[in-house]
Amino acid sequence: MTAARRAALRALLPTGVDGLLVTDLVNIRYLTGFTGSNAALLVHGDGDAQSRLCTDGRYRAQVAAEVPDLETVIERACALTLAGLAAELGISALGFESDQVTVDAHAALAEETAGTAALVRAPGLVQQLRMVKDDAELAALRTACAIADAAFTELIEHGGLAPGRTEAEVALDLEYRMRAHGAAGPSFASIVAAGPHSAVPHHGPTATPLRAGDFVKLDFGALVDGYHSDMTRTVVLGAAADWQRELYALVAAAQAAGRAALSPGVDVADVDAAARGVVVDAGRGEEFLHPLGHGVGLQIHEAPLLGATGSGRLAAGMAVTVEPGVYLEGRGGVRIEDTLVVTDGAPEVLTRFPKDLLEI
Amino acid sequence: MTAARRAALRALLPTGVDGLLVTDLVNIRYLTGFTGSNAALLVHGDGDAQSRLCTDGRYRAQVAAEVPDLETVIERACALTLAGLAAELGISALGFESDQVTVDAHAALAEETAGTAALVRAPGLVQQLRMVKDDAELAALRTACAIADAAFTELIEHGGLAPGRTEAEVALDLEYRMRAHGAAGPSFASIVAAGPHSAVPHHGPTATPLRAGDFVKLDFGALVDGYHSDMTRTVVLGAAADWQRELYALVAAAQAAGRAALSPGVDVADVDAAARGVVVDAGRGEEFLHPLGHGVGLQIHEAPLLGATGSGRLAAGMAVTVEPGVYLEGRGGVRIEDTLVVTDGAPEVLTRFPKDLLEI
Repeated sequence: MTAARRAALRALLPTGVDGLLVTDLVNIRYLTGFTGSNAALLVHGDGDAQSRLCTDGRYRAQVAAEVPDLETVIERACALTLAGLAAELGISALGFESDQVTVDAHAALAEETAGTAALVRAPGLVQQLRMVKDDAELAALRTACAIADAAFTELIEHGGLAPGRTEAEVALDLEYRMRAHGAAGPSFASIVAAGPHSAVPHHGPTATPLRAGDFVKLDFGALVDGYHSDMTRTVVLGAAADWQRELYALVAAAQAAGRAALSPGVDVADVDAAARGVVVDAGRGEEFLHPLGHGVGLQIHEAPLLGATGSGRLAAGMAVTVEPGVYLEGRGGVRIEDTLVVTDGAPEVLTRFPKDLLEI
Repeated sequence: MTAARRAALRALLPTGVDGLLVTDLVNIRYLTGFTGSNAALLVHGDGDAQSRLCTDGRYRAQVAAEVPDLETVIERACALTLAGLAAELGISALGFESDQVTVDAHAALAEETAGTAALVRAPGLVQQLRMVKDDAELAALRTACAIADAAFTELIEHGGLAPGRTEAEVALDLEYRMRAHGAAGPSFASIVAAGPHSAVPHHGPTATPLRAGDFVKLDFGALVDGYHSDMTRTVVLGAAADWQRELYALVAAAQAAGRAALSPGVDVADVDAAARGVVVDAGRGEEFLHPLGHGVGLQIHEAPLLGATGSGRLAAGMAVTVEPGVYLEGRGGVRIEDTLVVTDGAPEVLTRFPKDLLEI
C-alpha cells in the first residue's frame, strides 16, 4: 500500500527532478509506515530499488518491522546523510520540501550537495496526495470517529455532563472513555467550555464547574493508527433559553448548508461561503470567527482549508470537517462540527452523534 | 516575568539587528505567555512599546487575557503581517528564526519586506535563553515531576504492574492517574515495554500482556502549565534473573556517573562520556543506542543535548534528563532516567521515585 503511494508521488515529481527528499515525519509515515521521531526518506524517481529511508539507532528494530520493503540507512543526521547519497544514486536534481525545510537546514543541505546535485523546491507534493484518502485511511478515520461517538454517548449516559463537574473532569472522563474504546489517545487537547467559556473558540478545560443553564461546547476526537477524528457538539444543561435555542438553530442551519455544499469539483472557498452566508444573513457574520473547516487525516489540520483564503476544489475521498461557530462574547457560543468524506453522492458523515439540540 | 525574558532577548540581538520576528510558537509562549496555535511576535530592540504580537480572531479574547502587556494585531497571516509593519516601526534589519522559518515562508517574508527591511538570520536566540530556567519554570517542572512520581507510586500500590495486564492498559492507567493528580496530560506518548519489547528504546504500548519474569520499562511524564517531566523506570515482574540484575546494575552505575558529572561549566559531551564510559568499559557500548539526555522544559526535547554531538557547557538552572539505556535485542533492555536541575552544588533530582531494582 505504501509502495502505491510512493508510485503516485513519483508521478507528481516536476520534470527534471530525479527524486524527492522527504523530511516531514508525517509525510514519511504516509509514504512508508514508519512512525519514529527521526527520519528522512529519499524517493528515487526510478523506483524503490534506489529509494532509501534513514533513521537513527534507537529505531533499528522498529524500522525493520515497519518498513520491510525499503533499504534503510542508520544515521542520526538523516536528511544530510540521504542528500549526501543522492549523487551516487544518479540524482542530479533533488527535490526537497521547501514548505518544511528550514532556512538553516537548507543551507546545510546545499553545502552537502554542492557540486554534485542541485536542490529544487518541491513543496506540498505529499500533502496533495494525502488529501484524498485510500481505503485503509478511510477505515482508520471511520474507527476513530466511531470511538469518539461511543465515548460521548457513554459520557452522557453515565451522567458525565452535570452541574458541579468541572470542565477538566469532563475532558478527562471523555478522553479516558476514548482510550478504553481503543483510541491511542485524544487526537488533540480536548475543548470543554461551559457558560461564557463556550464563546471562546479554543478554550482549554479549567477547574470551572458546569452550571445549570450553561451551554457546554465539547470539541474532541480520537486517534487511531495515526488518524484523527474531529467532532464538536454543544449542549445545554437543563432547558434551553430562547437565545440559546435561536443561536443553536442558526449554527445548525449553517452546518447543514456547509454539508450540503460538499461535492466533488466544488471550490473550497464556496463551501465556506455556503455556510457563512447563513450566518451573515442572520447578522452574525462578525461572530463566526474562523474558517468553516479543514482536511483531517494523519494530522488534525491538513489540506484542504475550507475557508475564504483556501484554494482548490473538492474531490471524492477527501476527509474534511464542517464546523461553523457563532460566539457571543461574555454570554456563550455554539459550534457544531462533523468529520465527513466527500463522495460522488451525499457526503459520508463519520461522526454520527445526533446534532439536534440536546437539553441534558 | 515575560517582560524580563523579552529584555534578556534584546540583549542577545546581534549588532545592527533592530528587532526579532519570533515565529516558533513555543518561543512565543515563553516570551509572552500566549498559548494559542497561530501567532507571531515582533520583539522590537527599542522596547515593548514598539513590540507587537499577532494572532487571529479565534484567539481575540484569549490573547487579551494572556498577554495584557503587549499591543496585539489580529490577522491570520501573522508573520507576514508583522514583517510588513517592521519598516513603520523603524526596523531596517529584522532578525528571523532561520532554524524555524521554512524556505517557502522566508521567500514570502522577503517579498513582503523587499525594499523596506533586510532579513537577518538569527537562529536559536530564544532557545538559548530557555535553557536556563527561571523560578516559575522550575516550580512548574517540580510539580510535573512530583505528579509523575505520585502516579507511578499509586500505579504500583494498586497492583497496576501485574502479569496479564497489557502494555496499553498500563499506559492508560498511568496517564489517567497523572491527569487525576492535576496534569494537563502526559508530556509525550507513554512508553510501556514488557519483555523483549523493553529492548526497543521507543516502543509504543501494545495489547501484549505483561508476563512473570519480564522487564517492564516505563518512560513517561506529566504536563503542567506547558512544562514537561520525563522519567524512566525499569522493573522486573517477580524475582530478577541474574542477567537482569547485572544489566540493571550496569545501567544504574552509568546513570549515577551521568548525574555526578552534572555541574556548571562542564561540556555537555563530557557528561555523555562519563555515563557512556561505564557502559563501554563493560563491553556494552554498542547497545547504548542514543545520547545520554536532553534539556526539558516547554518542550520534551530541547537544548542542550547531552550527547557526543552536543556542544556547549552546563550552567546552573538548566533542566536536563540523564537516561542511559542498554538494550539486548530480543531479550530485554533497561533505561533509567531522571529529570534534574543543574545547581552550583549537587544536581536537584526532580523525579524522586527510587532507582533501586524493583521486583514486583
